[in-house]
Amino acid sequence: MLKSNEYFDGNVKSIGFEHKGDKATVGVMAAGHYEFNTAAPERMTVVKGALTIQLKDEDEWHTYQAGQAFQVPGHSSFKLEVKQATAYLCEFLD
Amino acid sequence: MLKSNEYFDGNVKSIGFEHKGDKATVGVMAAGHYEFNTAAPERMTVVKGALTIQLKDEDEWHTYQAGQAFQVPGHSSFKLEVKQATAYLCEFLD
Repeated sequence: MLKSNEYFDGNVKSIGFEHKGDKATVGVMAAGHYEFNTAAPERMTVVKGALTIQLKDEDEWHTYQAGQAFQVPGHSSFKLEVKQATAYLCEFLD
Repeated sequence: MLKSNEYFDGNVKSIGFEHKGDKATVGVMAAGHYEFNTAAPERMTVVKGALTIQLKDEDEWHTYQAGQAFQVPGHSSFKLEVKQATAYLCEFLD
Protein backbone atom coordinates (compact mmCIF):
# COMPACT_ATOMS: atom_id res chain seq x y z
CA MET A 1 0.00 0.00 0.00
CA LEU A 2 2.85 2.38 0.84
CA LYS A 3 5.58 2.00 -1.75
CA SER A 4 9.20 2.90 -0.98
CA ASN A 5 11.37 4.15 -3.84
CA GLU A 6 15.02 5.10 -4.12
CA TYR A 7 16.78 7.06 -6.87
CA PHE A 8 20.29 8.33 -7.48
CA ASP A 9 22.02 5.80 -5.21
CA GLY A 10 19.68 6.55 -2.31
CA ASN A 11 20.17 10.33 -2.47
CA VAL A 12 16.48 10.67 -3.26
CA LYS A 13 13.96 8.54 -1.38
CA SER A 14 10.20 8.64 -1.58
CA ILE A 15 7.08 6.93 -0.26
CA GLY A 16 4.17 6.49 -2.63
CA PHE A 17 0.57 6.46 -1.42
CA GLU A 18 -3.00 7.10 -2.49
CA HIS A 19 -5.25 9.60 -0.75
CA LYS A 20 -8.91 9.55 -1.81
CA GLY A 21 -7.90 8.27 -5.22
CA ASP A 22 -5.11 10.83 -5.72
CA LYS A 23 -1.70 9.31 -6.32
CA ALA A 24 1.14 11.09 -4.56
CA THR A 25 4.57 10.63 -3.04
CA VAL A 26 6.42 12.35 -0.26
CA GLY A 27 10.16 12.22 -0.34
CA VAL A 28 13.47 13.77 0.52
CA MET A 29 16.31 14.85 -1.76
CA ALA A 30 19.81 15.07 -0.32
CA ALA A 31 21.94 17.99 -1.53
CA GLY A 32 22.89 17.46 -5.16
CA HIS A 33 21.89 17.84 -8.79
CA TYR A 34 19.18 15.68 -10.30
CA GLU A 35 17.07 15.30 -13.41
CA PHE A 36 13.69 13.60 -13.42
CA ASN A 37 11.45 12.54 -16.26
CA THR A 38 7.69 12.76 -15.89
CA ALA A 39 5.05 10.43 -17.24
CA ALA A 40 1.88 12.06 -15.85
CA PRO A 41 1.88 15.81 -15.18
CA GLU A 42 2.74 16.49 -11.55
CA ARG A 43 2.63 19.21 -8.94
CA MET A 44 5.65 19.42 -6.63
CA THR A 45 5.26 21.21 -3.29
CA VAL A 46 8.27 21.97 -1.10
CA VAL A 47 7.57 20.68 2.43
CA LYS A 48 10.80 21.70 4.17
CA GLY A 49 13.84 23.27 2.53
CA ALA A 50 14.06 24.63 -1.02
CA LEU A 51 14.24 23.33 -4.59
CA THR A 52 15.81 25.21 -7.48
CA ILE A 53 14.46 23.86 -10.75
CA GLN A 54 14.64 24.26 -14.49
CA LEU A 55 11.82 22.92 -16.63
CA LYS A 56 12.65 21.31 -19.96
CA ASP A 57 12.85 23.87 -22.78
CA GLU A 58 13.17 26.75 -20.32
CA ASP A 59 16.34 28.78 -19.81
CA GLU A 60 15.56 30.12 -16.37
CA TRP A 61 15.97 28.48 -13.00
CA HIS A 62 13.41 29.14 -10.26
CA THR A 63 13.71 28.55 -6.54
CA TYR A 64 10.73 27.34 -4.49
CA GLN A 65 10.65 27.51 -0.69
CA ALA A 66 8.64 25.51 1.84
CA GLY A 67 4.94 25.88 1.07
CA GLN A 68 5.51 26.85 -2.57
CA ALA A 69 4.66 24.60 -5.50
CA PHE A 70 5.37 24.22 -9.21
CA GLN A 71 3.89 22.04 -11.94
CA VAL A 72 5.70 19.89 -14.45
CA PRO A 73 4.00 18.79 -17.69
CA GLY A 74 3.60 15.10 -18.48
CA HIS A 75 6.10 13.39 -20.76
CA SER A 76 8.66 16.03 -19.94
CA SER A 77 11.58 16.49 -17.58
CA PHE A 78 13.06 18.92 -15.09
CA LYS A 79 16.43 19.54 -13.49
CA LEU A 80 16.91 20.22 -9.81
CA GLU A 81 19.63 21.86 -7.78
CA VAL A 82 19.27 21.06 -4.09
CA LYS A 83 21.55 22.90 -1.66
CA GLN A 84 20.28 21.31 1.56
CA ALA A 85 18.30 18.14 2.14
CA THR A 86 14.73 19.04 1.18
CA ALA A 87 11.40 17.31 1.71
CA TYR A 88 8.72 17.50 -0.98
CA LEU A 89 5.23 16.33 -1.87
CA CYS A 90 4.66 15.18 -5.45
CA GLU A 91 1.03 14.89 -6.60
CA PHE A 92 0.27 13.22 -9.92
CA LEU A 93 -2.35 15.16 -11.81
CA ASP A 94 -3.64 12.51 -14.22
CA MET B 1 22.20 10.50 5.11
CA LEU B 2 18.53 9.77 4.34
CA LYS B 3 17.26 7.15 6.74
CA SER B 4 14.28 4.94 5.89
CA ASN B 5 12.11 3.69 8.74
CA GLU B 6 9.12 1.38 8.93
CA TYR B 7 6.64 0.92 11.76
CA PHE B 8 3.50 -1.14 12.35
CA ASP B 9 4.29 -3.80 9.73
CA GLY B 10 5.01 -1.21 7.06
CA ASN B 11 1.76 0.70 7.57
CA VAL B 12 3.81 3.73 8.59
CA LYS B 13 6.94 4.60 6.63
CA SER B 14 9.20 7.59 7.02
CA ILE B 15 12.40 9.11 5.70
CA GLY B 16 14.68 10.88 8.18
CA PHE B 17 16.86 13.82 7.15
CA GLU B 18 18.63 16.90 8.47
CA HIS B 19 17.97 20.39 7.11
CA LYS B 20 20.31 23.11 8.35
CA GLY B 21 20.88 21.18 11.57
CA ASP B 22 17.17 20.50 12.17
CA LYS B 23 16.28 16.83 12.42
CA ALA B 24 13.04 15.88 10.73
CA THR B 25 11.21 13.06 8.99
CA VAL B 26 8.56 12.97 6.30
CA GLY B 27 6.35 9.96 6.20
CA VAL B 28 3.04 8.39 5.33
CA MET B 29 0.55 6.57 7.56
CA ALA B 30 -1.86 4.13 5.96
CA ALA B 31 -5.39 4.12 7.37
CA GLY B 32 -5.37 2.66 10.87
CA HIS B 33 -4.87 3.30 14.58
CA TYR B 34 -1.42 3.94 15.97
CA GLU B 35 0.33 5.02 19.14
CA PHE B 36 3.77 6.64 19.14
CA ASN B 37 6.13 7.44 21.97
CA THR B 38 8.28 10.57 21.82
CA ALA B 39 11.82 11.09 23.05
CA ALA B 40 12.41 14.70 21.99
CA PRO B 41 9.43 17.07 21.71
CA GLU B 42 8.17 17.20 18.15
CA ARG B 43 5.98 19.22 15.85
CA MET B 44 3.83 17.23 13.43
CA THR B 45 2.50 18.98 10.32
CA VAL B 46 -0.08 17.31 8.06
CA VAL B 47 1.19 17.45 4.45
CA LYS B 48 -1.72 15.72 2.68
CA GLY B 49 -4.73 14.11 4.33
CA ALA B 50 -5.75 14.41 7.98
CA LEU B 51 -4.65 13.09 11.37
CA THR B 52 -6.95 12.71 14.37
CA ILE B 53 -4.88 12.59 17.53
CA GLN B 54 -5.12 12.28 21.29
CA LEU B 55 -2.21 13.47 23.41
CA LYS B 56 -1.30 11.48 26.52
CA ASP B 57 -3.28 12.57 29.58
CA GLU B 58 -5.88 14.36 27.41
CA ASP B 59 -9.43 13.17 26.97
CA GLU B 60 -10.18 14.96 23.72
CA TRP B 61 -9.33 14.01 20.20
CA HIS B 62 -8.41 16.71 17.68
CA THR B 63 -8.31 16.51 13.89
CA TYR B 64 -5.64 18.32 11.88
CA GLN B 65 -5.92 18.88 8.14
CA ALA B 66 -3.23 19.51 5.50
CA GLY B 67 -1.17 22.55 6.52
CA GLN B 68 -2.11 22.31 10.18
CA ALA B 69 0.33 21.30 12.91
CA PHE B 70 0.38 20.11 16.51
CA GLN B 71 3.13 19.65 19.07
CA VAL B 72 3.83 16.65 21.24
CA PRO B 73 5.92 16.97 24.42
CA GLY B 74 9.08 14.94 24.84
CA HIS B 75 9.00 11.69 26.79
CA SER B 76 5.30 11.37 26.14
CA SER B 77 3.02 9.62 23.67
CA PHE B 78 0.07 10.21 21.39
CA LYS B 79 -2.59 8.11 19.71
CA LEU B 80 -3.60 8.55 16.10
CA GLU B 81 -6.67 7.65 14.12
CA VAL B 82 -6.02 7.82 10.38
CA LYS B 83 -9.00 7.42 8.04
CA GLN B 84 -7.14 7.78 4.73
CA ALA B 85 -3.45 7.45 3.93
CA THR B 86 -1.90 10.70 5.16
CA ALA B 87 1.50 12.30 4.63
CA TYR B 88 3.14 14.24 7.46
CA LEU B 89 6.26 16.17 8.38
CA CYS B 90 7.71 15.53 11.86
CA GLU B 91 10.23 18.09 13.16
CA PHE B 92 12.18 17.30 16.31
CA LEU B 93 12.39 20.35 18.53
CA ASP B 94 15.38 19.49 20.72
